[in-house]
Amino acid sequence: MNVTIIGSGAIGMLLSYYFVEKGQTITLVVRRDEQLKQLQNEGLQITRYDQTHHNVKVKTMTFDHFMSSNALIDLAVIAVKAYDWPTVDKSLQKRMSTIKSILFLQNGMEHISYLSQYTCSEVAVGVVEHGAKRLNDFTVVHTGASAIKWGYVKYGEQKIMRTILEEIASLHFEEVSNWYEALMRKTVVNVCINPLTALFQVENGELLANEHLTTIMKHLFDEVVEVFELIDHFKVWSYVTNICERTKYNQSSMYVDLQQGRKSEIEAIVGSVQRMGKEKGINTPYLNMMFDAIKAMEWQKGVR
Amino acid sequence: MNVTIIGSGAIGMLLSYYFVEKGQTITLVVRRDEQLKQLQNEGLQITRYDQTHHNVKVKTMTFDHFMSSNALIDLAVIAVKAYDWPTVDKSLQKRMSTIKSILFLQNGMEHISYLSQYTCSEVAVGVVEHGAKRLNDFTVVHTGASAIKWGYVKYGEQKIMRTILEEIASLHFEEVSNWYEALMRKTVVNVCINPLTALFQVENGELLANEHLTTIMKHLFDEVVEVFELIDHFKVWSYVTNICERTKYNQSSMYVDLQQGRKSEIEAIVGSVQRMGKEKGINTPYLNMMFDAIKAMEWQKGVR
Repeated sequence: MNVTIIGSGAIGMLLSYYFVEKGQTITLVVRRDEQLKQLQNEGLQITRYDQTHHNVKVKTMTFDHFMSSNALIDLAVIAVKAYDWPTVDKSLQKRMSTIKSILFLQNGMEHISYLSQYTCSEVAVGVVEHGAKRLNDFTVVHTGASAIKWGYVKYGEQKIMRTILEEIASLHFEEVSNWYEALMRKTVVNVCINPLTALFQVENGELLANEHLTTIMKHLFDEVVEVFELIDHFKVWSYVTNICERTKYNQSSMYVDLQQGRKSEIEAIVGSVQRMGKEKGINTPYLNMMFDAIKAMEWQKGVR
Repeated sequence: MNVTIIGSGAIGMLLSYYFVEKGQTITLVVRRDEQLKQLQNEGLQITRYDQTHHNVKVKTMTFDHFMSSNALIDLAVIAVKAYDWPTVDKSLQKRMSTIKSILFLQNGMEHISYLSQYTCSEVAVGVVEHGAKRLNDFTVVHTGASAIKWGYVKYGEQKIMRTILEEIASLHFEEVSNWYEALMRKTVVNVCINPLTALFQVENGELLANEHLTTIMKHLFDEVVEVFELIDHFKVWSYVTNICERTKYNQSSMYVDLQQGRKSEIEAIVGSVQRMGKEKGINTPYLNMMFDAIKAMEWQKGVR
């Protein structure tokens, strides 16, 4: 099977390692030449949640190279950041005839409305619940083991993706029928945890330890569940606080992004909910303020 | 004239210096023995906005000593932080018969409703627009020259306070007829500038330089002018942004308080507006969030 992973951040590197460990031949598509060289020279390094350290060889390719190739791909996993997805999307359309199945792993809800444009035989959406942190261009830390929930948006008879993903047991690919709800729940978690931990520069657990942060988190939660029209508030709130508790010593991806001077995913995560709220005529002052707070931090850090 | 200044933070020290400079005999009432000793040993030191440095002798007294004395006081200036005012208030009532006039200089709107309880002949409220920063127990920096707007809440025929204050020209005591409006305007400024600069750890000017902070500031502004039922929004917004601009290299008192691990005045400044909003049935989500954000920071810094 020919698996291509597009995007070499924390999630892209994490997936690459577990596919290679399982004996799959994968290609990791990176954007920058420098990272390509680093990955080729140093190998892909990972510190797993069991504290063991591993170094594997991974076939790498630049995005330009990938675009000019005609190789047939059984599964393309799109693991780029949500804000890079529109760029990747345009290019992917040109290679559509050579791709059998595509799995999208973006945060937020932005990419959903474009999925129908993908004409390949299988299209799926996944939600990564693992904790992963990119240390440098060739090293990732698997900070917390969990699952990847995914579901078919469109599928043919072959079920290529299901066959491939079922093999990667260590990542706990869990097929769900309601991928849209899984995505919404992940977005609720991201809205509640990411901007607050980034703004206050705290680990996830602090949101429950500091009652004033819990108060703000609850207001954000109330707005997002209203926009999503989720009914089982109590259950979803438990889901959010459980994740906070389980990942209490973790830094959220948004916290790490801002710390490292990178663009955050605030537009995909909070922006997408704001837009949905606006369309439904629902006021979201807490989301609006958090959006501007993170944009203000990006501005402070020179990410403009 | 016997002038007593109660409270020896930035404002208390600033006032003490300018009264002494004018040849007034004043008593500065401090809370902590340690500060009393420091002021006695080192003198009261000030760096003025013209960059000159001065060191003057000031008569100091502990609050307990002040309370047990019976000396007749012509003017008592209450320069304690808003959150210390309730404690001072209780004690002051016991010395009321020996005080001819009292001037209150607190931030926020909390103290207003209690003013009618003061039975001395003259009661006034003032708004300090000077920039002042406490460096240590005996040093203050006059970071920006402006004015102190004040007005009589109650007065007799003698006008003792007016006579005393008119002499301290360097502090530009400016008597206004509508002290309540002056206090409201100062509160609008404090609500717009203090919590945001404290949360993002920026100097005042950054609120205009970073458009995302300006957006948040404008939302806070909209809520506070709605609560105060101010009509001339455009004029008040200009007033706020002018102060931001004039004090662009200054750190707000709330920023400094949190930086130095002290309790902030968030309850007096934002809390008082929240309560007024609640009484009037006006929603104030931005104020609520800012309130919790600053309380969260106090918690982080161990000020609980």
